[in-house]
Amino acid sequence: MLDLAPVRWKEGKVSILDQRELPFSVKRIDCAKVEEVAEAIRTLAVRGAPAIGIAAGYAVALAAKNCASSGSNDCHAELLRAGELIKSTRPTARNLFWAVDKVLKATESFTAPADIAKAALAVADGILADEVERDSRLSKFGSEVLMDGYSVLTHCNTGELATGGMGSALGVLKHAWASGKKIHVYATETRPLLQGARLTTLELANAGIPATLLVDSAVGYLMQKGLVNAAIVGADRILSDGSTANKIGTYAIAVLAKEHGIPFYVAAPLSTFDLERSEIPIELRSPDEVRGFRSERTALATIEAWNPAFDITPPRLITGIITESGVLRPPYRASIARAFQGYSD
Amino acid sequence: MLDLAPVRWKEGKVSILDQRELPFSVKRIDCAKVEEVAEAIRTLAVRGAPAIGIAAGYAVALAAKNCASSGSNDCHAELLRAGELIKSTRPTARNLFWAVDKVLKATESFTAPADIAKAALAVADGILADEVERDSRLSKFGSEVLMDGYSVLTHCNTGELATGGMGSALGVLKHAWASGKKIHVYATETRPLLQGARLTTLELANAGIPATLLVDSAVGYLMQKGLVNAAIVGADRILSDGSTANKIGTYAIAVLAKEHGIPFYVAAPLSTFDLERSEIPIELRSPDEVRGFRSERTALATIEAWNPAFDITPPRLITGIITESGVLRPPYRASIARAFQGYSD
Repeated sequence: MLDLAPVRWKEGKVSILDQRELPFSVKRIDCAKVEEVAEAIRTLAVRGAPAIGIAAGYAVALAAKNCASSGSNDCHAELLRAGELIKSTRPTARNLFWAVDKVLKATESFTAPADIAKAALAVADGILADEVERDSRLSKFGSEVLMDGYSVLTHCNTGELATGGMGSALGVLKHAWASGKKIHVYATETRPLLQGARLTTLELANAGIPATLLVDSAVGYLMQKGLVNAAIVGADRILSDGSTANKIGTYAIAVLAKEHGIPFYVAAPLSTFDLERSEIPIELRSPDEVRGFRSERTALATIEAWNPAFDITPPRLITGIITESGVLRPPYRASIARAFQGYSD
Repeated sequence: MLDLAPVRWKEGKVSILDQRELPFSVKRIDCAKVEEVAEAIRTLAVRGAPAIGIAAGYAVALAAKNCASSGSNDCHAELLRAGELIKSTRPTARNLFWAVDKVLKATESFTAPADIAKAALAVADGILADEVERDSRLSKFGSEVLMDGYSVLTHCNTGELATGGMGSALGVLKHAWASGKKIHVYATETRPLLQGARLTTLELANAGIPATLLVDSAVGYLMQKGLVNAAIVGADRILSDGSTANKIGTYAIAVLAKEHGIPFYVAAPLSTFDLERSEIPIELRSPDEVRGFRSERTALATIEAWNPAFDITPPRLITGIITESGVLRPPYRASIARAFQGYSD
């Protein structure tokens, strides 16, 4: 079984799995300096908001450990600089900022470099442990909606590689399989960046779960043939009414599921919910991603291309939202509000 | 303007556009021997059933011309051998068998090699001319359903490269544009073989029609945003009730069009209709097509992949079927039967 942990503290270094090379090469980058972690985040060696948050926490812990070893007198200043560097790598991943600040705050009350280093590492470890625990609870709740023998469609990558824990939608599938349900997973390739083809199939094979890869456009025919019992996807952001932003193609899967009477589930921790906003901005990415893949071009560079990274699925198409507080059901305004009673991030 | 004629008789040779290299290299293969035409068909340098039929007709004409030049006494036997070779290249394209037999039959009553060669070339020219004329009529009827200013979604490649004429669905778009309607085309990339990205965008650019490429899974979001006024696709086979087999992904587009109240048209000549069958077998192609593209691999070779080349769209999702006899409307059993009164292939 491959070790697919995206981020890990290992012998005083931050060990990062280089996801850019997956699935063809499984190699880790052992970062001895905070600059190396920053580079790994910036260049997408580690991706997925929760995994980025874990890397960010350990990056600050690494700076603290190095400061303690160097005999410096001003570790607080060095940690602040490390935090700023990490925060400059990617602008949108909320977990990154949150994790840096959480580690910095935990070190404030210490003065001895060794104590600062110890506190920083404890908090970074805690961020990872929380993610693992949250995914585990979510996955257990989710697996209850899947029956033995189900074929389940999923989209994009929502597993350990993205979250550091079991994953969200993929965590649900892993839990169902581990608890003895003989499921079969259909994984879309997920153009343009092919997270399904490259990452999800690897995680499923690693877990020993039978799986079949298909192009995104084959989902309709798959459902028409009666080969799918349920669909389950992750989420990048969920509004208070249940509107769900997720990888482009999710909305089409939800419409097709409705057309065929197939339940459609979203799996996401409560940290994914955004109760403040009433709409979700959709990131438009480079047209080059549509005009090719890696070294291979598929269309002329002069061809105009449209590359929305996400789409929005309206709550009326969602059968249930699987969280670490249970499976939320429509009407979502009420069930989401209930889930947040007593919740703090 | 690029010359994208897939097959042409040129100075005593069969000139074939090598579609495997498109859009990055536009080069022609000038075949002086029938074996070279067979190889071009077998290796997909020329694809699209009508274009293959045209190539097959000219291949027999080439054999006749070469026989006449060589001073052979038994050109009929040589033509039969040439016909068998061409028929052995691809098993399913009906046009291929039909075209070979049509040219052979036309030469039967001649004995002088020069007369045989002349008759064969005339019939091969006629096959191309018929295709051009059929596409032209179909395209004119079809363009009447498109309003000035429409944005139209299309899928796969249904243009000159596939038919030798203007094309079917793409012919409709070209005719609308040429007649002064300011349309905008959204072209899906059409995984796994990317005919949309590679071929359709090239034909649209060549015709000067504004177009935008998108991944197949972005169709739902495109429609949700109100960016599409109509969808139009081609067909590989249409049954007497209007059930339409076409490139994988067509069915999902039809369901999404229905969900958004967008008209969904199929454009195909009457030769595409199969009034005998009551169901359509779906070709399953190599999983390697799903696990990568050209030299680039996207998933491990050990991952199971499902690769249906086509899907079937039920008549209830089809707004109209555009043919050279006009736009057929539901109920299709009646309108298709009427279109075939007096039609002979």
